[in-house]
Formats: sequence, C-alpha cells, structure tokens
Amino acid sequence: MSKPTPLSGFPEWLPAQRMIEQNVVERIRSTFELYGFAPLETRAVEPMDQLLRKGETSKEVYVLRRLQEDPANQKDDALGLHFDLTVPFARFVLENSGKLQFPFRRYQIQKVWRGERPQEGRYREFLQADIDVVDRDSLPFHYDAELPLVIGDAFRSLPIPPATILVNNRKVCEGFYRGLGLEDPDEVLRTVDKLDKIGPAKVGELLATLGASAAQVDAVLRLAQISTADASFVDEVRKLGVDNDLLNEGLGELVAVVDAANEHAPGLIRAELKIARGLDYYTGTVYETQLQGYERHGSICSGGRYENLASSGNERFPGVGISIGVSRMLGLLFGQSALTVSRSVPTAVVVALPSEELRGRCDAVARSLRSRRISTEVAPSAAKFGKQIRFAERRGIPYVWFPGADGEPDTVKDIRSGEQVEADAATWAPPAEDFVPSVQGV
Amino acid sequence: MSKPTPLSGFPEWLPAQRMIEQNVVERIRSTFELYGFAPLETRAVEPMDQLLRKGETSKEVYVLRRLQEDPANQKDDALGLHFDLTVPFARFVLENSGKLQFPFRRYQIQKVWRGERPQEGRYREFLQADIDVVDRDSLPFHYDAELPLVIGDAFRSLPIPPATILVNNRKVCEGFYRGLGLEDPDEVLRTVDKLDKIGPAKVGELLATLGASAAQVDAVLRLAQISTADASFVDEVRKLGVDNDLLNEGLGELVAVVDAANEHAPGLIRAELKIARGLDYYTGTVYETQLQGYERHGSICSGGRYENLASSGNERFPGVGISIGVSRMLGLLFGQSALTVSRSVPTAVVVALPSEELRGRCDAVARSLRSRRISTEVAPSAAKFGKQIRFAERRGIPYVWFPGADGEPDTVKDIRSGEQVEADAATWAPPAEDFVPSVQGV
Repeated sequence: MSKPTPLSGFPEWLPAQRMIEQNVVERIRSTFELYGFAPLETRAVEPMDQLLRKGETSKEVYVLRRLQEDPANQKDDALGLHFDLTVPFARFVLENSGKLQFPFRRYQIQKVWRGERPQEGRYREFLQADIDVVDRDSLPFHYDAELPLVIGDAFRSLPIPPATILVNNRKVCEGFYRGLGLEDPDEVLRTVDKLDKIGPAKVGELLATLGASAAQVDAVLRLAQISTADASFVDEVRKLGVDNDLLNEGLGELVAVVDAANEHAPGLIRAELKIARGLDYYTGTVYETQLQGYERHGSICSGGRYENLASSGNERFPGVGISIGVSRMLGLLFGQSALTVSRSVPTAVVVALPSEELRGRCDAVARSLRSRRISTEVAPSAAKFGKQIRFAERRGIPYVWFPGADGEPDTVKDIRSGEQVEADAATWAPPAEDFVPSVQGV
Repeated sequence: MSKPTPLSGFPEWLPAQRMIEQNVVERIRSTFELYGFAPLETRAVEPMDQLLRKGETSKEVYVLRRLQEDPANQKDDALGLHFDLTVPFARFVLENSGKLQFPFRRYQIQKVWRGERPQEGRYREFLQADIDVVDRDSLPFHYDAELPLVIGDAFRSLPIPPATILVNNRKVCEGFYRGLGLEDPDEVLRTVDKLDKIGPAKVGELLATLGASAAQVDAVLRLAQISTADASFVDEVRKLGVDNDLLNEGLGELVAVVDAANEHAPGLIRAELKIARGLDYYTGTVYETQLQGYERHGSICSGGRYENLASSGNERFPGVGISIGVSRMLGLLFGQSALTVSRSVPTAVVVALPSEELRGRCDAVARSLRSRRISTEVAPSAAKFGKQIRFAERRGIPYVWFPGADGEPDTVKDIRSGEQVEADAATWAPPAEDFVPSVQGV
C-alpha cells in the first residue's frame, strides 16, 4: 500500500500528546467525581429522527449504513453518529427513567462527530467532557449556579491559562426584546448571536430588516454590550428603561449565578449579555468560556439550562449542563506548544540487557520493580550499553538499571544527572516525582 | 416524542455498571503502563480501502456519509468505522513512522463497530483494550512470550474468575500440513477453525472434499487434539511422525512462549494446537483466552503475531498484539451478576440541608470535604431529614452530614450502622475503604 496521509478534521495525537490528553481527562474526571457526578457512556449512534429533532445541526450529521445492507431498506431505521452528548443523554434518561435516581447527576467524556467542512479549529471528530443534572418535572435553580463552580475547579486543576466563564440568561434577552415590543425574540437572538462575526453595524442592519425601529436596534445593541464581573449589570439593564416580567425573572436568576460564583470562586464568572448559544434547546442560563490568551478562538466550554429536551408523553426531565471541548482546548494549547510532558512513555526504568541469556534475570528485576508500581521495561536486545542508554534517552526515561555481573550488586543510573548507585530491585524506588510522567503548562 | 427503546447490539450500561467498567479499564490501563506501553487513540474512521484490505470482516463494516453529501461524490473518499484496533494502529505506525521510537509499545482502549446481525453475545459496538509491540524490519520473538504475561497480570488485577490463555503457532499448523503433503494449508486451517462449531467428523468430511486422504485427515485431527500445560506438546507432535522445517521453527517458538509463562506465571497458559484465529493477518503465535466458568462463550481476549500488516514500499513494521474484549467480558459477567459496586455514585457524603437559606453554609462544608478528596454533594432541597437520608440510602452513599444549629457542632452519620458522631469539616475523613466505591467479584 502507499503511505497513508492524515484525514482533515480527524485529529490524532502522538503518544506524548495522548499522555497529556489522558492526564487532562483524568483531572477533569476526578473533579467531576468529587462533586458526585456518576459516569455514563452512551452508544455512539442515535436514530436519525432523534438527531434531527432539535437545533440547527442537522446538516452536520454522519449517517451510517452497513456495507452489505440493502439500500432499499435503509430509511426505516437509519442511524447517525451523535453530534453532542446532550441529545443522547436526554434520550438515555427517558429510556431509563425507571432505573435512575433523580435528581440525576452524570458526567460523560466521549467523542462526538460532525460532518461539517473542516476549517481551522473545527474538527469532525472531537472529545467532549460533559456534566449535567436533570430532575423529574422541575429542577431547582441552584444547579445553574453550581455547575460553573464545578467547571471552575476542573479548569483550576489543569496546567492551563485562567478561564473565564461568560454567563447570560435567555429570559433576560427574550424578556427585554418583548418589553421593547419586538415580536420575534428568537430571530432577534439569532441575529445578535452574529455580533462577534459581523459587528454591531451589520447586526443593526439585519434587525432593521426584521422590522426593528432605530430606537429598538439601539436598545438591543446596548443590552448586548453589557458585561460586568458582579451583579451591577442589573442597574445597567434598568437604565435602558425596559420592564417585563420574563426579563425580571431572568435578571434574578443571572444575579444568583454571578453572586454564587463571586462568593465561592471570585474572578471565575462574568455576566456578558451578548452570549446567546446557537442551539435551540436552551431556555434560561447559558454559558460560554474563554481561555486567557485564546479569546479570539471562541468558547472552549459551553452549555445552559434546557427545560424541554427530555420529555415524552407526560414525563419531563428539565436539566442544566456544561460541556468542555477537550479536543478543541488541547488543539489550541498544542498549537502554541503550551503543554509538555516529562517523558513520552510511562516507563520510569529500563533494565539493560547484558546478553540474551540473562533475559530471565532482567525480567525478574522488572517484575520486582513493577510489584511496587514502578513502570519498567527490559531492553529490546543485548546491544552495547551506550545504545541501551540512548534507547532510554530518546524516550525521556529517567533511569537505566544495570544487573551486576558475577555476584556484583546491581546499579541504577539517573541518566539526566549521570549519577549511578548500587541498588536492590526489592527495595529501590525513584523519587515520587519520577514515578509517573508529569504534565506541565508553559 | 415517544419513549425511546434500546438498539439491539449497542449495549449501554447503567451508571453503577459504568462505574464497574471504568474501574476495570483503569486497572487494565494501569497494568499496561507498568509494562511501559504508551497510550494511543486513533480516529474512529478509516478509508474504506484500508478497512477492506485484510481479513474476512469486510461484510461487517459501517460506512459513513454526510447527511448533506452529494451521493454522486461518495465513492471517492468513503470512510468506515474501524472494526478492530489493529488495522488502525498499523495505519498509524506507517503514517507516523518518522515520529515514533521503535520498538514501539502502545496500548489503545477504544470502541470498535461491526455492522453484523446482532445475536447473543455479539455486539455492534464494543470496547476493546489492546496492546501491541511493533518494530522496524523485524521484531524480536521474546515479545510473543512477554505479551501474555502482561495480559495475565491485567486479569489478575481484576475481581474476575481465573483466565487461561490458549496459545498456538500458525507455523506449527502450516508446517505440519505441508509435511503431511497437503497443498493448501490456509484452507485446511480455516476448516480446522470450525472444529468447535461442527465437530471432528464434519471437519474430516470437509478435509476429504479438499482432497485429503484418510491418513491425512486423521493426522490433522490428532494434531488439533493436542493440548498441554507445558512443553510436552512437542513429544506428542513428534509421535505423529511429520517432519518439516517450518513445523520445527513453530514448535521452537511455541515452546519459548509456554516456558516463559511457566517460569513467570504458572498456570496461565496452555498450548492448544487447534487454535487458529479467523483473521488472515496472523503469521505465527496466536492467542485466545477462556474465562473459567464461561468457556462455552468463547474467547474474551485474542491476538497474535503479524509480520506483514504494516508495510508500505520498502518500509515494514512486524508486530505482535493482544486485545481484551472488555464489553464482551463485562457483558458475560453482568449477565451472571458476577460483579458488584459498593454504591451507584462516586459520592461519599451528602450534606443535609436544614433550610434553603443555609445552602451557602452547606456548600462551604462540601467544599472543605472536597479539598481533601472526599466526594460530596449537598442535598437537592431542604426536605425533612428522613427524606434526605433516603436520598443517600437509595444511592448507597454511606455518610450524611448534619450542620449544627445555633453554634452546635456539626455531626456526621454512617447510615449503614446508624452511628452519628460530632465532626469538623476541616479535619473529618471517612475510613480509607469508603473514599471511593469499591468493585467486587461474587
């Protein structure tokens, strides 16, 4: 065969990068579990009618067919790859509601797929790490305030730049637009969502074509400019002179989220009233997240409250969730060489092999070290010791073990410092920081 | 929408089962890393021409198309979901050979997909955990002996019944058949592979239709009956009176694998000369694995040596690998309720909420416990304490924390024993065995 080439939009990390990804996922998972979120994995596929039910992502779905399938049969039960983890989760909750305890807190760390045209920073396959809380019939609002704190803790556990969670509430926008007398608040919201792409002048023109007066356009744009680190956004909204019950409800909710964050994690959150989120299923709080120094690349962690995503007959499970775009975040950081790992393999010790006849003896050394959780490999072949040391060096493995000849004691060499000491495989251990590879930010 | 129903062949675990799966995967991964295997993940998709290149699995592939794709364009760059992790790994090695260090040891724990008709114990989506070692041009044989020892350690780290790895070598079979004068050893091997399904009489008939004499059929069936825990299979083969160079080479290799296992892990391995493995790419050692008490369900862990899977132009990367069928193994064990977890959530402590006004105080208790790695939730609402205790009970959470009223000290209750003691959130910790849920075999 000819030498294969990468597929655009399907990132693959080299082992050292995969070690970083695994370390990052492990820390995120550990934080989620500290807050009592239970793990869940759903299948990669959903029936197409489920995937096309909500949102504007229908065009991005990958449809599956079995190679030997009769094309005439295909429509009946067509399956597609999931494009997020929220829609499959909502389906899972409905399907298993009798077996779950509510409120149900779960996390889910899985690949998702979008069949879109690849472009910078857009992947067709990527890893997401989601938390959601759902409850039967109604879900207390305080979860909207708790979730960003969990995410804040997760980010603080990582060697990455500080993150700011931008939060808004759709009730604020919809109530404000209604209070202004605008008839189609959803359409206005979708237009405002284009602010970062096309700028306020173009957004104003589009709003005018929707029938908004100059005063309405001005008010909409001024609302979108409001951004505060505390609850002072309320005063700024009030100054715009719009009154509406839904607006007031939304402001109250948004204050609760911002106040909780300022009590427990000062500096984590900003109220930013232009945040809209594309997906149709959000009904209240919405979140986006900027990584300091990477603001222009957009949100690396988003979510919101959804009242109606999981419902069937008279069963209804409102929820709130946030999703970390793990691949997106790592892609940005790898692009800037902003994350490093101390070695490209888990191995802490290579046992040098004096001759192939001594492989059994070297295997026994390795077994003894492994029994005390020290990752160990035996050299692949009985080459000159210089070559065996280079084997370790090229992988960043810190220690080489030399079995003693003819009753001499074994020695172990730290190949970074060159220090070589006598050692007993039954008791020797490296310093704690050398046990497993360490991941660092730059 | 109507209530969703499961999709046949796409298993989904409930959170308690997913916790078990995660625990099992974590132990497997930890063993792989102790042996210096580096982590890798490849994309879920491969070009169809890659997937159809080898083996008999072509009929099982899921083909992808983008929903909005022009069907006329589809053939050019059709993608399919990978059906194993070996073919994608071989492709990855060829694609990235300039960036990898050889011999390259990697593990890979990912979902794979097969579009086959679902039947008992056959999944369309399942999790595999693979280790492979590849090297440039040639790979030392001792890795064929090392890999089953890694797998043996991984299995011993799990609370499951003992596993036996059955090992054979295709050179033994091919050499024996050639030495007997049979012209198409591959066809004979494929026929012998049906022994467990159709029995020796039927296999004999099929061999006769391939032109085998009665004496040849008899020798082939007698070879397939040989099964020994040590190297004594060599004498049994010799008694059949066949001599062939390839046979001798295969016997030497198989002895090396069996001897190494008997030195380092007595009882782990049996030489079983009927093991053939369906996949065409194996060229020497082949492995299958039986779980005690589940023998009739077939192999839960298989693999072998492949000389020619990863090659392009004059580059060649022979390898040897084994794959644990994680979903398959867990499906069997879950079916017998043979694995349990001590609770269905990570949470160790629920902080009872006396009133909604005290949520801030309860959040502070939770934060303090979490800072010492104790998984904690605050109760969802200020219900009666009896209801809050039932919230914990239903999830198997062992401790409920009660904030003291009016300057009284806090208390914590072990709801299994009923014991309630004064406690300070800054210093209290549960016993070590209650920190995280524990997984047990039955």
